[in-house]
Amino acid sequence: MRFEPRDPEYERRVRESFARQRVMETIGARLLSVEPGLVEIGLGFREELTQQHGYLHAGIIAAVVDSACGYAALSLAPAGSDVLSIEFKLNLLSPAAGRSFVARARVVRAGRNVSVCAGDLYVLQDEAGAPEKLVATMLGTMLTAAA
Amino acid sequence: MRFEPRDPEYERRVRESFARQRVMETIGARLLSVEPGLVEIGLGFREELTQQHGYLHAGIIAAVVDSACGYAALSLAPAGSDVLSIEFKLNLLSPAAGRSFVARARVVRAGRNVSVCAGDLYVLQDEAGAPEKLVATMLGTMLTAAA
Amino acid sequence: MRFEPRDPEYERRVRESFARQRVMETIGARLLSVEPGLVEIGLGFREELTQQHGYLHAGIIAAVVDSACGYAALSLAPAGSDVLSIEFKLNLLSPAAGRSFVARARVVRAGRNVSVCAGDLYVLQDEAGAPEKLVATMLGTMLTAAA
Amino acid sequence: MRFEPRDPEYERRVRESFARQRVMETIGARLLSVEPGLVEIGLGFREELTQQHGYLHAGIIAAVVDSACGYAALSLAPAGSDVLSIEFKLNLLSPAAGRSFVARARVVRAGRNVSVCAGDLYVLQDEAGAPEKLVATMLGTMLTAAA
Repeated sequence: MRFEPRDPEYERRVRESFARQRVMETIGARLLSVEPGLVEIGLGFREELTQQHGYLHAGIIAAVVDSACGYAALSLAPAGSDVLSIEFKLNLLSPAAGRSFVARARVVRAGRNVSVCAGDLYVLQDEAGAPEKLVATMLGTMLTAAA
Repeated sequence: MRFEPRDPEYERRVRESFARQRVMETIGARLLSVEPGLVEIGLGFREELTQQHGYLHAGIIAAVVDSACGYAALSLAPAGSDVLSIEFKLNLLSPAAGRSFVARARVVRAGRNVSVCAGDLYVLQDEAGAPEKLVATMLGTMLTAAA
Repeated sequence: MRFEPRDPEYERRVRESFARQRVMETIGARLLSVEPGLVEIGLGFREELTQQHGYLHAGIIAAVVDSACGYAALSLAPAGSDVLSIEFKLNLLSPAAGRSFVARARVVRAGRNVSVCAGDLYVLQDEAGAPEKLVATMLGTMLTAAA
Repeated sequence: MRFEPRDPEYERRVRESFARQRVMETIGARLLSVEPGLVEIGLGFREELTQQHGYLHAGIIAAVVDSACGYAALSLAPAGSDVLSIEFKLNLLSPAAGRSFVARARVVRAGRNVSVCAGDLYVLQDEAGAPEKLVATMLGTMLTAAA
């Protein structure tokens, strides 16, 4: 599905909001790409973000996939509005083991007030050439409101 | 509902696993209490954990409530087993603004393999005496497996 | 938590809307009680509502618990508004076996536009005196809009 | 993603189980197609399945999408096993208005015990030629167990 942005400055707006998310800097997440209704965030593995088995904690996965979902929705919102997460569901599919991860989110339905987004976390190809693998998948609901 | 733990060492086991969750130390979360089927985790506000409006990011909320849910399930699991999150849904109810938060999780159904837990994040009473407020609520599914 | 209804005619409004839900009549569901933020719907077992093992199908469980959640939200909405489900998550905890069921829903957060509700389905005490049992639990999000 | 069925009789097994779901006959749902990891169920509009505005009730949507998800998982399960829904989340995206609907479900992760499925409900092209439209989307978790 292709979306038309309602604000031509959508990318700048998403990048500025991302830069204000202090937690993204804290965990080392980077905003990789912003297209209308599609956002990618990259994250490298860090031991200080792990759960008891040494994999990325589900909350860290939720942080990057939720931010990607929210910014996918924001990329389609009119100028002067902001997006907040109402709720999300995250399914954890395989251990978040690896060196490098990417969260990819897309808008499933863009509403005036309520948008629905889907996002996935993949572990990227490792040095030995193992292909990308799906780690987790999210379905979430975002609220667009006047900023 | 009251639960009987199957492992008398349940509290030690939960505390040891929590201590291995590096991300809990990173964000400053502390394990406050462990009872059969009930776990509380405390978290103080930190600017480096915030989203674009200066509130705790949803992923950080998810981290502490998911860990509380997982450890509530682990407190009822037999010795030698471990608990992994299959999935969770988190509803964000009000801004995570305040100085001090507590995640409270309880087991709703304790199964041999699959357990269901509910968890809430509250902001605690502030210095001006404002009462506790519910910030977010989670419903999640945990898998118990041999460690 | 206790709620104050904004429309003194809340019960009449809920009952009229329930009466228009043709599917409730089709499956034999009855509106048992309406209080501010709390709604109960009863359902008797019927073989024509079952899944492959002879228990109530998850979709039928979802139907009554979702309606109970929506009407719990509607009981707190201002006059002239309507409530629609944005989304819900349903966990199935034990087989929906038995003769008689009740869905109990409560508002967790009552917002101007977005409300969050929790609902449960119980199987009622049977003739042999077995106590109530929790069959399923739902966490859902409702949208209040002008009718 | 393509899956290899572990039971060559997967289609027969799915069709036999579907035929035992009495509720599918009650609401008029038909099993349209069964491929490894992919299942489609068709549903025609009926007034007796509607909510207060005359659209299909969310519980009926849940019924067909959940069954499609469960049978997508069953199509990949070994012979002699059965699939039960642990939980699902359903987002309602647009009113279920129209004459004819199809639920399409696919397996996202096929595990030995736990599978994750995604399903959508579409309203089909109407007589005036309006294209298909997405009505609802589900993300659910299924348990495979010995029958």
